[in-house]
Amino acid sequence: MSVSTASKASTSTLTEQEPVLRVYNSLTRSKDVFKTRKPRHIDWYNCGPTVYDSSHMGHARNYLTQDIIRRILRDYFGYNVNFVMNITDIDDKIILRAREKYLLDETKSKHTSITPALLNDTKTAFSRFFSGKLIKSLPSLPASLSDSQDDLDKFLVILEQDKSDPIFAEAARQKEEKYTLYLASLLKARGAIKKAEGLLNGSGQTDVVELVDGTSDVLGPYYGETLGHTISDPIAVSRQLALYWEDQFFQDMSKLNILPPNTKPRVSEYVKEIVEFVEQIIKNGFAYEAEGSVWFDVAKFDGAEGDGYRHDYAKLQPGSKGNKKLLDEGEGALTGSKGKKQSADFALWKAKSKPGEPAWPSPWGEGRPGWHIECSVMASAILGKGMDIHSGGVDLMFPHHDNELAQSEAYHGCQQWVNYFLHTGHLHIEGLKMSKSLKNFITIDEELSRNTARRLRLAFMLQTWNQKLDYSRGLIADTKAKEETFDNFFANINARLSQAAPSSDGLHQNGPAEETLTNDLFDAQKDFHAALCDSFNTPTAIQTLLDLVAKTNIYISTKGRDANLNVVTNIAEWITRMLRMFGLGEGAPAKNGIGWGMAVVGGEEVNGQVVSSQIEPWAKSISSFRDAVRRLAMDKTLNPNELSKQILALSDRFRDEEAVNLGLQLDDGQGSDGGALFKIVDPQSLVAAREEKRTIAAEKLAKKEANARAAEEKRIAQLEKGKISPKAMFKPPHTNGLYTEWDAEGLPTKDAEGNEVSKSLLKKLAKEVKVQEKLHEAYLAWVKEQETKQ
Amino acid sequence: MSVSTASKASTSTLTEQEPVLRVYNSLTRSKDVFKTRKPRHIDWYNCGPTVYDSSHMGHARNYLTQDIIRRILRDYFGYNVNFVMNITDIDDKIILRAREKYLLDETKSKHTSITPALLNDTKTAFSRFFSGKLIKSLPSLPASLSDSQDDLDKFLVILEQDKSDPIFAEAARQKEEKYTLYLASLLKARGAIKKAEGLLNGSGQTDVVELVDGTSDVLGPYYGETLGHTISDPIAVSRQLALYWEDQFFQDMSKLNILPPNTKPRVSEYVKEIVEFVEQIIKNGFAYEAEGSVWFDVAKFDGAEGDGYRHDYAKLQPGSKGNKKLLDEGEGALTGSKGKKQSADFALWKAKSKPGEPAWPSPWGEGRPGWHIECSVMASAILGKGMDIHSGGVDLMFPHHDNELAQSEAYHGCQQWVNYFLHTGHLHIEGLKMSKSLKNFITIDEELSRNTARRLRLAFMLQTWNQKLDYSRGLIADTKAKEETFDNFFANINARLSQAAPSSDGLHQNGPAEETLTNDLFDAQKDFHAALCDSFNTPTAIQTLLDLVAKTNIYISTKGRDANLNVVTNIAEWITRMLRMFGLGEGAPAKNGIGWGMAVVGGEEVNGQVVSSQIEPWAKSISSFRDAVRRLAMDKTLNPNELSKQILALSDRFRDEEAVNLGLQLDDGQGSDGGALFKIVDPQSLVAAREEKRTIAAEKLAKKEANARAAEEKRIAQLEKGKISPKAMFKPPHTNGLYTEWDAEGLPTKDAEGNEVSKSLLKKLAKEVKVQEKLHEAYLAWVKEQETKQ
Repeated sequence: MSVSTASKASTSTLTEQEPVLRVYNSLTRSKDVFKTRKPRHIDWYNCGPTVYDSSHMGHARNYLTQDIIRRILRDYFGYNVNFVMNITDIDDKIILRAREKYLLDETKSKHTSITPALLNDTKTAFSRFFSGKLIKSLPSLPASLSDSQDDLDKFLVILEQDKSDPIFAEAARQKEEKYTLYLASLLKARGAIKKAEGLLNGSGQTDVVELVDGTSDVLGPYYGETLGHTISDPIAVSRQLALYWEDQFFQDMSKLNILPPNTKPRVSEYVKEIVEFVEQIIKNGFAYEAEGSVWFDVAKFDGAEGDGYRHDYAKLQPGSKGNKKLLDEGEGALTGSKGKKQSADFALWKAKSKPGEPAWPSPWGEGRPGWHIECSVMASAILGKGMDIHSGGVDLMFPHHDNELAQSEAYHGCQQWVNYFLHTGHLHIEGLKMSKSLKNFITIDEELSRNTARRLRLAFMLQTWNQKLDYSRGLIADTKAKEETFDNFFANINARLSQAAPSSDGLHQNGPAEETLTNDLFDAQKDFHAALCDSFNTPTAIQTLLDLVAKTNIYISTKGRDANLNVVTNIAEWITRMLRMFGLGEGAPAKNGIGWGMAVVGGEEVNGQVVSSQIEPWAKSISSFRDAVRRLAMDKTLNPNELSKQILALSDRFRDEEAVNLGLQLDDGQGSDGGALFKIVDPQSLVAAREEKRTIAAEKLAKKEANARAAEEKRIAQLEKGKISPKAMFKPPHTNGLYTEWDAEGLPTKDAEGNEVSKSLLKKLAKEVKVQEKLHEAYLAWVKEQETKQ
Repeated sequence: MSVSTASKASTSTLTEQEPVLRVYNSLTRSKDVFKTRKPRHIDWYNCGPTVYDSSHMGHARNYLTQDIIRRILRDYFGYNVNFVMNITDIDDKIILRAREKYLLDETKSKHTSITPALLNDTKTAFSRFFSGKLIKSLPSLPASLSDSQDDLDKFLVILEQDKSDPIFAEAARQKEEKYTLYLASLLKARGAIKKAEGLLNGSGQTDVVELVDGTSDVLGPYYGETLGHTISDPIAVSRQLALYWEDQFFQDMSKLNILPPNTKPRVSEYVKEIVEFVEQIIKNGFAYEAEGSVWFDVAKFDGAEGDGYRHDYAKLQPGSKGNKKLLDEGEGALTGSKGKKQSADFALWKAKSKPGEPAWPSPWGEGRPGWHIECSVMASAILGKGMDIHSGGVDLMFPHHDNELAQSEAYHGCQQWVNYFLHTGHLHIEGLKMSKSLKNFITIDEELSRNTARRLRLAFMLQTWNQKLDYSRGLIADTKAKEETFDNFFANINARLSQAAPSSDGLHQNGPAEETLTNDLFDAQKDFHAALCDSFNTPTAIQTLLDLVAKTNIYISTKGRDANLNVVTNIAEWITRMLRMFGLGEGAPAKNGIGWGMAVVGGEEVNGQVVSSQIEPWAKSISSFRDAVRRLAMDKTLNPNELSKQILALSDRFRDEEAVNLGLQLDDGQGSDGGALFKIVDPQSLVAAREEKRTIAAEKLAKKEANARAAEEKRIAQLEKGKISPKAMFKPPHTNGLYTEWDAEGLPTKDAEGNEVSKSLLKKLAKEVKVQEKLHEAYLAWVKEQETKQ
């Protein structure tokens, strides 16, 4: 007896190598084996939104992608994920927009009618906007411009013409929509001012609103610059705008079924920590103060060596080191560069430059945090000295993430602050970058009125997460088709399951087909695992599920009513769990645990609705069908054959009309008891299928009718032709002077010129006579028939 | 710049050792590191039920425990679990019970009244049962017993007295309830026989049923032995009983929220494979045929060496090797031992011993599989040459599992067929083994009427799976308290969440209290993981969750309205997922993903019902009603009147049955279009109303019938009385010596002593004569009427 062999043997029987999870890491530009710092625990920091506007499809791609990876790590690989995402609520864009909005709102509420002063403000604002730096670089405009109204009007006309000018268009493309938007702002403002000129003094509050809103693009910046200092509590003004958009953002995320972060720190709540962090970097020798601002000393940092480590700047995108355009964009519209040593240096702390700007106290005077520092500080405050994953959109790689790394490594005095840097790919729309000027700028809300959150998620999953995704009509069609494949699969299996005989019936032994299908499941599970281990390769994972669905469908259609529901259920149950794991489930699963729920366009809730509103149409249908049956059964005027015929017709009508509207698909004769197999499906797809069936039927009928019509026309033409007796067919009026003499049978003997008709022609004509004889006979027969009828 | 440091660094930062899953393995009697043969895939064979009776709490412990482990492996550790569980539907107990049931049913249906032969059968059966071997070992009874009815009656009285005798009680305990049940059977049968004796011949079918059911414990075995051979299709008879109980079993499992097996093979469908398997064992030299049976040669197997391996018998319970009592129990009631070489040998194939036993063809003649072989064969057929896990109740260790291992290793020619053998612990009730005689035998259905499936599951989880569990009032109280702790926790957090200000409010920065609580969560996640890695230590895992709840409650009550809901939500969400992972969830989770749902006593579903599950019964009803209508309409054998009549009857039935169950009230003719007015109401109230209506109708009918019966009885009594002519009414035999002389009208003149009859008495008697005259007249009229009828 050997009691200790088991564990030894079980080790030795592990023959296949288990794939390990590898993740594409922007830091190494390769798929690295994924190892966490603590067992089964992931500390993850994700760059969250700057909250000043609606979220668009680019945001959807970014946050959905992170949600999908987070769910895979949590619900497939079993990690406890600590997901931190910041809210950037201190930012030049927020400050500008908030103060403009505040000043414009104030203007609207202060005026009860359009005053000359207000009108004048709009005109001044228009002039300033028009003669700003943008206009000067427009290619096809005169170099010198006066600010006079006439000049402006003249040039507006030129500008408008230029819209179709290829050079202008190219410039617009290069400048990323700025020109187009600029022009649109000018035209809109011009219209509003013209209208307001006619309404001066005599108009009411509504006209004020119309004028201010119409000129807001030009008046906002003007007031911002000239009246910004009048704002007494700029922090509160900024905060109000940020809060509004933060709320909108999380509503959008919730509609997309994105899990909320475990912690969502706001910059405005971490200013104290930011100041301390910056102080420490200065102490560590990697930053300097200049005129109230603090700058990161890139040159000093890059290559500096510490105790067992070396600092490197721009690890993520070394090629962008010193790229001034990218660096400037990172600094924000309100940031100056006074006292900055090198152009590569970036702001850790920005001195307050003008009154009316939100500012916090610091050892360097009043000011506010730079953009990059916030993430370093909040991540360090919440996650400590390092983290497993840092993620963000690919456009944040440089300078934001590279600067973040530099700051944090300078602060912590370490070689490496982040273990895995994940960057989600770009989103294009129909092959083009999304931009307002191309009219392909789509907000999440808009898109959710056309496609469900599930469809978006599935569409995004059809591309690997770190590649560019082209959101196109083709992709949506492909996604829809795949969705329908899953829908039909679940509907089919649920129908068969719920209408199956009790479990105690049926053979439980697997035959070769069932064994094959079971192995298909095991293979799919292996492939699926391998795909997710391969840096979360969702396109392959989804394809694996679809291939398994296809195989199962073939099995079911081959076996028909003898299909082994046990094997099929194992498959459907696994596919359900995997789809739900990705966050593709809608509502709760069916009681039997199969299906990903019902998707509804518009992001509406389906499940959890009150019972009666869902059930009422069913109750109505069942009741009226029964009524109709009873009426027929009670109708004494019907003869017996008629009764059964009409009941059957009623049943067919019910199947094709009422049931379709309910989303009830009835497959007569397919049920296990020989009755109908019923499936509860999406009514819309059922209606669509019925319409398609009808169209096909209508086309068939139309073709049949056309054929019949053509046949009838042919018959009439032949009858018409048959009217002529064969003996008269070569005589006038039928041959208009072709021949001049005929024999007794009516065959011509001489032609028009009196010559003998040739033998060969005669032979040909004789053949024609034969044909005509038949036609004429048919004609005579028809005539006779008509006579008898009368 | 160093691009390759990240992956290196991430490896080096893994400072804590991750615990690995270890599983208590009966084969090694230690917690072995768990490694599967294929990556992420577990092949698991679990010994399923022998289906011949209701499932009880012992079954619940066993199958719930396996379900909990299966869910932990699948949903926590991420394995794809291929769970195979057999249904034993060929078994001596099934055969015996099925044939008894069949013969008793036949007896009941054949007899319209109690015949002397039937009564005699019950008496013979009683005598046989009474004088069986059990009675002879009863301690306090006379040693010699006669079979006479008087003796039996006498001893029954003694037996009944003995119930309170401590010696008898002790004997009963020792013999595991057999005595008590034996006595109960005898008393019940005796009562039924006594009653039947008074009803001989004059009684009806109901009395037959009462007699047969009352004596079934004694009559069943008697008929089984004497009439078993008359059953023409014993396989079908066995199968019918097995199917019924298989269905009941899976219904019970479903009520306990136990996942169905992925494959559930039945022995009856694997007889061919069993025969082939046995043939191979013979070929391999480890079994021999004797008189139509095949025996496993234990002596030859134990210690035999093969190519790189050695066979060992009784690996699991070596101490039980040769334990005759256990071995005999394993062989079954119908198994002989003809031709067996050693007492340790066990049957692979049992020759058919008597006509009327189910039997299948084999090279050794007709017979049936032994008990142990089925599992070896089905597991091998479905899982191949080995498996990761084999499980079953601890009482199956020897001989069942040891024999299974021996057979399989003899067949496959291998050292080790199973890698991990998991045995679930016993269940006791209030400290005692569950038994019918102790009145602590509880079926699953009974228990679910008192406690929910969740409570049972949670209660079982409070003991480690391989230990004995004492199901006691104390345990239930403890479980209830823990359940309430979770309930209150979720209710508290959900209330706070749903009544909280929008997400954009509140501070998002964590203070020290929030950091501590967050670390409590991370620590709990670590401890929870360690507990599950420690051979699925569920008591510790649950305690970890409860401790975290306690800490969170303290945080909330300390912070009050300032509690950071984000941190609290992270905790509640994780606890929710872990509880649901264990199968402790009831219904769908709340929309915010927090809570384990509402538990309801009786195992019903309540909240979180899904769209399709609500609609499904409607779809089903509508479809089947339509099916029924169509079937009638297509039935050519129906004449026209019949058709409409039947359709109307169908409609009524639909209204009164199907619709009521749906909660659809149909008031015919009340609709605005003359059809039915439909109302959607609570199905339960509708059912209750229907039942009440039925009860009232039934009571009315019963009263009417009782009145009619009373009237009829009165009429018959009066006719009976009227038989006597008024002139004869005071003469013998009607007055037995009251009077000695009479006048011409039959009125008495002298009493018994020869004295004159008093005037007053005479007056009274004259009145009686008047009454009797009328009765006699009526009687004569009735006689005449009867004569005319003939």
